[in-house]
Amino acid sequence: MTTPQELFERHRATLDQAVAASRQRGYWSPFAEMPSPRVYGETAAADGETAFKARLNKLFHLDQPAAGGFIGAERSPFGFDLGVTYPKPDLDALLAAAKTAMPGWRKAGPDGRAGVCVEILTRLNARSFEIANAVQHTTGQAFMMAFQAGGPHAQDRGLEAVTYGWKAMTDQVPSARWEKPQGKNPPLVMDKVFEVVPRGVAVMIGCATFPTWNGYPGLFASLVTGNAVIVKPHPAAILPLAITVEICRAVLGEAGLDPNLVTLAADSADAPIAKDLATRPEVALIDFTGSSEFGNWLEQNARQAQVFTEKAGVNTVVIDSTDDPKGMARNLAFSLSLYSGQMCTTPQVIFVPKDGIRAGGEPLSFDQVVQAIAGATDKFLSDAERAVEVLGAIQSDATLKRLQDAHGLGAVALASRKLDHPKFADARVHTPLILVLDAKDEEAYGQELFGPISMIVKVDGTEDALARATTLARGKGALTAALYSTDRNTIAAAQDAFTEAGVALSVNLTGGVFVNQSAAFSDFHGTGANPACNAALCDLAFVAGRFRVVQTRVPAAA
Amino acid sequence: MTTPQELFERHRATLDQAVAASRQRGYWSPFAEMPSPRVYGETAAADGETAFKARLNKLFHLDQPAAGGFIGAERSPFGFDLGVTYPKPDLDALLAAAKTAMPGWRKAGPDGRAGVCVEILTRLNARSFEIANAVQHTTGQAFMMAFQAGGPHAQDRGLEAVTYGWKAMTDQVPSARWEKPQGKNPPLVMDKVFEVVPRGVAVMIGCATFPTWNGYPGLFASLVTGNAVIVKPHPAAILPLAITVEICRAVLGEAGLDPNLVTLAADSADAPIAKDLATRPEVALIDFTGSSEFGNWLEQNARQAQVFTEKAGVNTVVIDSTDDPKGMARNLAFSLSLYSGQMCTTPQVIFVPKDGIRAGGEPLSFDQVVQAIAGATDKFLSDAERAVEVLGAIQSDATLKRLQDAHGLGAVALASRKLDHPKFADARVHTPLILVLDAKDEEAYGQELFGPISMIVKVDGTEDALARATTLARGKGALTAALYSTDRNTIAAAQDAFTEAGVALSVNLTGGVFVNQSAAFSDFHGTGANPACNAALCDLAFVAGRFRVVQTRVPAAA
Repeated sequence: MTTPQELFERHRATLDQAVAASRQRGYWSPFAEMPSPRVYGETAAADGETAFKARLNKLFHLDQPAAGGFIGAERSPFGFDLGVTYPKPDLDALLAAAKTAMPGWRKAGPDGRAGVCVEILTRLNARSFEIANAVQHTTGQAFMMAFQAGGPHAQDRGLEAVTYGWKAMTDQVPSARWEKPQGKNPPLVMDKVFEVVPRGVAVMIGCATFPTWNGYPGLFASLVTGNAVIVKPHPAAILPLAITVEICRAVLGEAGLDPNLVTLAADSADAPIAKDLATRPEVALIDFTGSSEFGNWLEQNARQAQVFTEKAGVNTVVIDSTDDPKGMARNLAFSLSLYSGQMCTTPQVIFVPKDGIRAGGEPLSFDQVVQAIAGATDKFLSDAERAVEVLGAIQSDATLKRLQDAHGLGAVALASRKLDHPKFADARVHTPLILVLDAKDEEAYGQELFGPISMIVKVDGTEDALARATTLARGKGALTAALYSTDRNTIAAAQDAFTEAGVALSVNLTGGVFVNQSAAFSDFHGTGANPACNAALCDLAFVAGRFRVVQTRVPAAA
Repeated sequence: MTTPQELFERHRATLDQAVAASRQRGYWSPFAEMPSPRVYGETAAADGETAFKARLNKLFHLDQPAAGGFIGAERSPFGFDLGVTYPKPDLDALLAAAKTAMPGWRKAGPDGRAGVCVEILTRLNARSFEIANAVQHTTGQAFMMAFQAGGPHAQDRGLEAVTYGWKAMTDQVPSARWEKPQGKNPPLVMDKVFEVVPRGVAVMIGCATFPTWNGYPGLFASLVTGNAVIVKPHPAAILPLAITVEICRAVLGEAGLDPNLVTLAADSADAPIAKDLATRPEVALIDFTGSSEFGNWLEQNARQAQVFTEKAGVNTVVIDSTDDPKGMARNLAFSLSLYSGQMCTTPQVIFVPKDGIRAGGEPLSFDQVVQAIAGATDKFLSDAERAVEVLGAIQSDATLKRLQDAHGLGAVALASRKLDHPKFADARVHTPLILVLDAKDEEAYGQELFGPISMIVKVDGTEDALARATTLARGKGALTAALYSTDRNTIAAAQDAFTEAGVALSVNLTGGVFVNQSAAFSDFHGTGANPACNAALCDLAFVAGRFRVVQTRVPAAA
């Protein structure tokens, strides 16, 4: 057995670096993002695939309280059933077990808990290939993205949550001597102890597109602060989180702690349990990523809990001018294509002035801007074998239907095409649809259309574009915004406007940084300052309410 | 004009000390708690009284948006009408003015805002005598307490909120360069700006007993984090907060900022505005101190806002054993008498084993323990002239009626007596009532009875007492708990039990520290971990959600 305190000593240097990184917000990551054999081991890729395949068409055993029976009906968007089934949860038993497990976890203390959490993340990192396969074949992400976003980048976000939680819990000393002068009389002297206590049972409700990247922050923020966590995956993406729960439980058990601090509550689309679970009085914390509709429901109805939501919105791009039109078009083409636009950060609306823009010192008409973006996208995806490694597959029937229905919303600048996947015959691969709409068509472009659907909207000018973009952000929410402008005053005005609207802004991206990507320890994902989400990944507000400090004071022995 | 940045430079050293104190939690206060002429000036006491008297029977002018008309009907618990009237608020106009004022305040930045807030607190400190008179003659506190709790201690709590807000806002750098290695290729380099933005309009709803001490934390936490604050005092205690608002507005104006960042919304008991104001969509933050009933209403109904509440509960004392029975009895006598028990931290229930306790090595029967406490209280208050300076006056008719009705709840160990105040003929001064009840009478002792009503409850033993005390804390809430025990294991068990129940515990207080007192920068007031309050004064959770961070990123110039 390795004690929590020993794990803390083992990972202390990482935690210290992580705290510094969270403050300095430069580039930092302890987990290698390239699936390189030199880092992960010569056999890691093959081992991970083998481990994944060994999971298929089997029961996934977890030694946790269960009702009996198994459920699960995941299907890979690349065209096959996973056939994995999971223990059917008994919510009463899971909640009771979670409560029983917490006092021992509290006593491990902030340092011990942080040590255990970093150990879990380190184990998750070693299993990145297995998890990447699981992410790929539940979300439809292409392998490289499934590895990076589902593995090391998700682990980064998990570590970030551990870091903020540890930083917040240790903001005050664990004990202190208080000595108040009394003039000529002896001072009053008290010894005080400040103990961090959990809020209660936490529930993490996963999403279908980024089960680990969006799930780990809430899971680890709640866990490190002393709470037990019940993981409720999306029915379409259970496996990556089931593996995660398995690893959490193994590390907890090896550290002499109760594994029931982390349990899995899988459900099916036919018999969802999230509403029942989320409104249980024992549940004090909820993390949710998914639809605005259910996120808003949780915020309104799970009144007994603190609810952290990452929902959706309408992300916009404002094109004012550029000195690199080709770089701009290439950059946008990648952003619109990546994982078929199934990211909550993908731009949906691109505002372009009706009279065109200045591009590299030359005028570019509205139609030319449209053509540049559509053309760059088409060209970028012209080689199907390469394209499928960017696009991945469409995760859900609903997104595919939305894509098909969207063709009628405007003039088609680039139609969506079905691509054949060279390795998976039944993979659901479709290129992005790009439409052209008029500013007055806000009913069409101002609704959230999750998936590979983008709309270039003709506006009066940049001022009009900024006004529309920030109004949409305030009304519908936005996780990202982008601006292209060569004018310093326009950039300043846009920065001010998007800051007031609570949207993170990326300016003049023409190279290898993309508006829909967000790096842990540097970029805050979401702001919590518009309807797209009520929390940011990851800041002090994300962790500070997950625990309480309870003090005891005793007169100091004379 | 002194700019916010200049005010920050002026107060930088104080803020740095305050941050260190908030972490170390030893004794620290920048504001002198003794009303000494050497600290506050030879004429300060007389000047303060004169300033207070000059307010009486006049309109209180505030140059803020108003509907026209004045309201106000405060009456001193020491027996005279204040006759002060305040501008009748126009909520639409106040909210609009608040929103207009915020962008400029955001741009003052975390440092500038902290500088302005500490300047306000410094000005409030200089006006401590005037505010002490206003607190005395609205709350009924005796002068010394009104000075200390209403002046320097309230300012300490305000500074603590400023400190936590500043610490949280500056947890990350304001800007950073992000440089991601790309193997043999040049790195990706981005310049990032992280701007702190407010949540919206804040409302601080004051209480009748500690308008400044309980009001300043929310006021300053919201203000320093960039929000405008509308101050809604209790109709019985407007004047201390009206003076506070006046000073806030003066400092803001002198710093070139919009004074409408802090406005007063006074109301009357006949036409309360708190529910209307609290549920306005513009309101994003609410701080409330007062009844559990209205606090719970706010938590349930002000869904658009983050709601921070300090409510009420049933505070308990568990007596197991003591080596200083006289010190214990004297200490409890003071705690029960101070401000006639009108503190949310005053003990209400004292559990004593039916078979008595060990006291100084000798047995003390249950009846002897009761007699020790009742006798010490009676003796402590035997000199009326001294007693009124501890008891103060009963703040409300409701508390007086509650005291009178409570005599029937149990056997009377010490009856409440009406005392004549040597200076104020109509002052409402009453000594505490001490009753004896049986463990089975939980319906009587387990209800919150705010005011000078204490109940000594006969229990089976210490274990029974701890179980009852922690069950009450979990069900009804508690802000404090106290234990007397000479046994190390009993102390450890009690610490564990009260920690799990989320109640701050004071052990073996026999000298000059009292269970109902709580020192800023060392003691957390409330935990947020039981129904007595959902927030603690003051921790990171109290401030971290009051602002958001919005980033802008731009490729670094080559």
